[in-house]
Formats: sequence, structure tokens, C-alpha cells
Amino acid sequence: MGFLFLFLMVTTIGTALAIPPATYQNHLLMPHSGFEKHSHLNCPSWRLAVETHNIRDWTQIPEACVGYVASYILGKQYRQDCDLISDEAYNYAKGLNLTGDGKDVWVFDVDETTLSNVPLLATTGWQLMAENSVEWFAKGESPAIPGPLKLYKKLVKLGFKIVFLTGLSKDFTEIRIRNLKAAGYTKWEKLILKKVDDNRGAVAYKSSERKALEEEGGYRIRGNMGDQWSDLVGTNTGDRTFKLPNPMYYVP
Amino acid sequence: MGFLFLFLMVTTIGTALAIPPATYQNHLLMPHSGFEKHSHLNCPSWRLAVETHNIRDWTQIPEACVGYVASYILGKQYRQDCDLISDEAYNYAKGLNLTGDGKDVWVFDVDETTLSNVPLLATTGWQLMAENSVEWFAKGESPAIPGPLKLYKKLVKLGFKIVFLTGLSKDFTEIRIRNLKAAGYTKWEKLILKKVDDNRGAVAYKSSERKALEEEGGYRIRGNMGDQWSDLVGTNTGDRTFKLPNPMYYVP
Repeated sequence: MGFLFLFLMVTTIGTALAIPPATYQNHLLMPHSGFEKHSHLNCPSWRLAVETHNIRDWTQIPEACVGYVASYILGKQYRQDCDLISDEAYNYAKGLNLTGDGKDVWVFDVDETTLSNVPLLATTGWQLMAENSVEWFAKGESPAIPGPLKLYKKLVKLGFKIVFLTGLSKDFTEIRIRNLKAAGYTKWEKLILKKVDDNRGAVAYKSSERKALEEEGGYRIRGNMGDQWSDLVGTNTGDRTFKLPNPMYYVP
Repeated sequence: MGFLFLFLMVTTIGTALAIPPATYQNHLLMPHSGFEKHSHLNCPSWRLAVETHNIRDWTQIPEACVGYVASYILGKQYRQDCDLISDEAYNYAKGLNLTGDGKDVWVFDVDETTLSNVPLLATTGWQLMAENSVEWFAKGESPAIPGPLKLYKKLVKLGFKIVFLTGLSKDFTEIRIRNLKAAGYTKWEKLILKKVDDNRGAVAYKSSERKALEEEGGYRIRGNMGDQWSDLVGTNTGDRTFKLPNPMYYVP
């Protein structure tokens, strides 16, 4: 979802503009990151601290851990981690009693939750580059992450209504509809994208959209799955949240 | 902090009573755990899901992962994970402006946060047994976890007041004072233990104690560190929370 900010910026400021924090060198100058204090950074410790939200507001993978993150994401572990969390979400979901009024919803984030941008990241040195991202999104070929896709299908079967809530700009609505369908997400109750001129951070934006779902839409958010803590904190977070791994980028 | 419940139970119900969920066989019957669905449980995935609060309310380490957890805790990784999180907490803390009125506090949980019960767990097959725990606590020899101890010393130097907040029963107050001092925690503003007849879960109990600190005591909780999510969620959680790893037991 770093992409989402990218795209908000891209569509707001203009497609020719490159996004600044995109080189390895930059991380040495990062404020508040604390990475530079760890001369012998232990990458498994770094990843755990990121996933448990102990390290926040980081802007890119520490240089010493780029290879480690690549191995993790491209190897089996990332997929298995996503599978186990999706299984746990299903174990929770199948124990719920649905009312049958069509108001029990499950909220999914999109990027790195239901769709994967790993094919892009893996070819750009795990860096976010505006130009690459624009091309990539325009293709509409982001694949599904297997665990969450399987979960999605089971939730639909159980009777949950699905809400996709993404920080990506509304400009990408048609592309995203096409991409979600191509990836196997064939139906949903709502697909919420961010207004082009909405400059709020993810926590404020997503909280307000979830609040509108519950207070205006009369929906009950029974589950909420995302790859960023900013998908899962704030208000109206849902009865239970599920955090997928993402040691690739951070969305505040 | 499973110990804390243990001890509440022990001191409430009587020291002769063994705590039930203490054998490997039990986990097959665990409700809501979902472990039995994972015939080929991937232990790193299980641990990540525990640490990110995706798996909740588990009662013991899955049998397939006991060896994995033992290796993790007794090897270097656990210590390094605790070090990195403590470093990150210090990086955050040193950037704060303290008022100098003695009301800026840092809340630490005790068991598996400031003091370690690993010497007990490692000799009891990573199982909580009431008798062993009683003997163990009575010794008052729980060692400090190195990272948080170092953090504690630095926080004191920066001018933070320290509050230890534990779910352990007040019956253990004197033992705990002795143990904390022996382990290197030489001064604090408050050491809060649980009333013997307080049967609330950790989230309710700790939230209400933190609320009292802020609303009655006029303290500002600038940081809050624990090994359980129940230390860090609820109300009055503090300006920022830090989650240490604990794949050994779960306190709701």
C-alpha cells in the first residue's frame, strides 16, 4: 500500500514525478528509523519488530536486510505465513453466526493482502518507483496471494459480504475491478478507493470509511484483514483483525 | 504472565491444586485454537502469527513446535529480538521531551518482560505447573532479560519514572521486590500487583490500573512494554507500546 500513496501522489502531482525515497543510500538519512544504530542488524529481529509494530514509520528495507527480505518473500515462508493466518481467519469466521440480513461484512485491504505486487518489487530491487508502479498497475496483472484468495472464497460461501478498502486513488477504479476479477475475486459488496484529493493518512482514511460502513451503511465488520497496521488500528476496526506479513514497505 | 494467573489461582484456590492445561495431550482438545487443522504445522509461521496476535487464546505450545520454541528461546535469536525492540524503545524515548514534574512514566510488565522465568520453563518441558511455579517464584531468582534491563537503566537516566504493572498476586509483593532488586531493577515509582480476589482478565485489570495512574495519579504513560498483547491493548495503553516476544504461553 505504499503504492497507494504513490498513486495518490502520482495522480495528484502528475505522472512525470518520481517518488523520492527510492534509493538504497537514502536510508542512512532516515529520521526516526533507528536502523543506523544497528551496525550488526539482525534481519530476523528486524522483521519480527516490523511485524509486531515495534518499528514504525520506516521508509525502506535496511540495506543489510534487502537480500533477507527477498529470500523470505520469494521463498516458501511468506506464502506459508499467509496461509496459516488465512486458515486462522477461517477458523474464526466459521464459528460466527451470521444474521442472514446481508450486513455481516469482511473487510479486505487490496495491495499485499488480496493482490500482490511482488512481481514488480522483485524486479525493482524492492524499491518503490513511480514510473514502474504506474506501468505495473496499468497492466492490471497483480496476482492473488493464495491464502487470502482461498479465505475470500470460503467467506463468500459462508455468507459474508466482502468489502475491499484500499488507499489507491479512485483513478484506478476500472483497472482494479478488472485486476480483482482476473485474479479470482469475482464478487463483492463494495470496492472503496480513495478520493483523488483526499490527503489523509491511511489510519484516518480507513477509519472514516469503516465508520461510514457501520454507522451509515448499517454493516457489521466481523473481520478485517490487511498487511499494514494502519489497516487494522484506528476506529471501527472490526470484531477481529488479521495482520498479513509485509516487510517490504510501511504505510503510516 | 500465565504465571500470574497461575498464582492468582494458586493463592486463591490453595497451593495444593495443580493447574489443568499442563500436558501435551490437552492441546488436541483445545477449542478455537485451530492447531489441529495444521497437520503440517509450520512453526515459524505459528510463531509469527502468535506474535502478531493473529492466533489468540491458545493454551499451550503446539506439540510439533515445542522443540522449535525451545531452540528459539534458548538460542541467540530470542535475546537479539528483545535487544532490538529495547533499542527501538530507547530510540523513541530519548526523542521525547520530559516535563521534569516527575509524571512521565514508563510502564513495564514483569514476567517475560523485565524478569524471565525461562530457567523454570526450560526444566518443565515449557509447561506451567503450579507446584514448580510456586517453588520457583518463592526463590526470587528470576533473572533480568538483558535488553529490557538495559532499557530500564537508560530510561531512569533520562528521567522517566518507572511503573511495574503485573498480574501476579499481591501475596508475592515482598518476594518480587527482592527479586527485582537482585536482578538490577533498583528503583521505581510504583510496583502494582493484583489484588488476591481480583478475577478480571489482564486486559480489564491492566487497563483499569493504567487509567487510575493517568486519571487519579496525574501520570502520563509515555511508553508501555510487555510480552503479551493483553499488556498493550485496552484503554490508557500509553503513547507508544512495545511488544516483546513470548511464544511460550498466552495471557488473555
